Amino acid sequence: MKRITILLIAVAVLAGVAIFAAITSRHATAQEAAPIFGIKIYPGYRDWRLISVAHEEGDLNDIRAILGNDIAIKAYREGKLPFPDGTIIARIAWSYVPSEENNKVFGRAQSFVPGPPPDWYLQFMVKDSKKYAATGGWGYAQFNKDGKPADEAKLKTCFPCHVPVKARDFVFTRYAP
Amino acid sequence: MKRITILLIAVAVLAGVAIFAAITSRHATAQEAAPIFGIKIYPGYRDWRLISVAHEEGDLNDIRAILGNDIAIKAYREGKLPFPDGTIIARIAWSYVPSEENNKVFGRAQSFVPGPPPDWYLQFMVKDSKKYAATGGWGYAQFNKDGKPADEAKLKTCFPCHVPVKARDFVFTRYAP
Repeated sequence: MKRITILLIAVAVLAGVAIFAAITSRHATAQEAAPIFGIKIYPGYRDWRLISVAHEEGDLNDIRAILGNDIAIKAYREGKLPFPDGTIIARIAWSYVPSEENNKVFGRAQSFVPGPPPDWYLQFMVKDSKKYAATGGWGYAQFNKDGKPADEAKLKTCFPCHVPVKARDFVFTRYAP
Repeated sequence: MKRITILLIAVAVLAGVAIFAAITSRHATAQEAAPIFGIKIYPGYRDWRLISVAHEEGDLNDIRAILGNDIAIKAYREGKLPFPDGTIIARIAWSYVPSEENNKVFGRAQSFVPGPPPDWYLQFMVKDSKKYAATGGWGYAQFNKDGKPADEAKLKTCFPCHVPVKARDFVFTRYAP
């Protein structure tokens, strides 16, 4: 009886260690920093307030939400440019898929909703005018759904693409009223 | 001199009264309750957290965000059905327009963003299983951008349209992960 108890405790401890290791490992992946700008995924970004939404056709073919931290939302609503240091804008993209269940109700193909996350699932723009002076005061990051950051080559394309909207402090998204 | 002072005070008072009247009038419009269900616009709904996004083609041709109050978000994340009383889901729709400025950067027509608000700008679904027992436990409301509620005929179409998704407690929108 005593031996069985010890065995059960041992199994329980080992299971606990395994679960802990799994959680730690997953956490480590999620906390991997994006190259160049050293940005990690901001905890709680999914709770941030809405700036706007968009649909990108072509190669991207996604539907997206653009969220902002409190500093971002305040600056947007006040129409303040440039965005102050501490501004963080998060962009979540989902693949763009027809909703069969909605379309059945409407009786026609009209409804498009978020599907499986693409590789460019999550992006951040982080304003730090000193740290990121070389790229217009903004740091850029991209992560897939598993928290794996995009590589350096990918991140080097961010700033040049944003230069045409320099007059709006390099930010494409306008606030949806 | 004294007469000019009195005149200036009189003008200031009248201007103040006019501004106050304007604010009160606008406030009154925004606070007009939707017919049947008696729902008013919930203050602060634009700060609620994101449930999902969607694009509706056809007659609607809008791009939309679906937000939820804290009770809604908690229930969604826990996958809890039916939604508890107190759940409020807000749906904001904007007309679906190409972004000329984004497309210029991409070199092709690929970006669609929120444009001017349509008449069905804002909708609410409010869960109160007793008050709204006759319509599956949900009250419905629709407002245009000026806060003017949709008429009774319009609101009578809400519940029948939601009946096909009764298995998901009459809610079309799924949580976007």
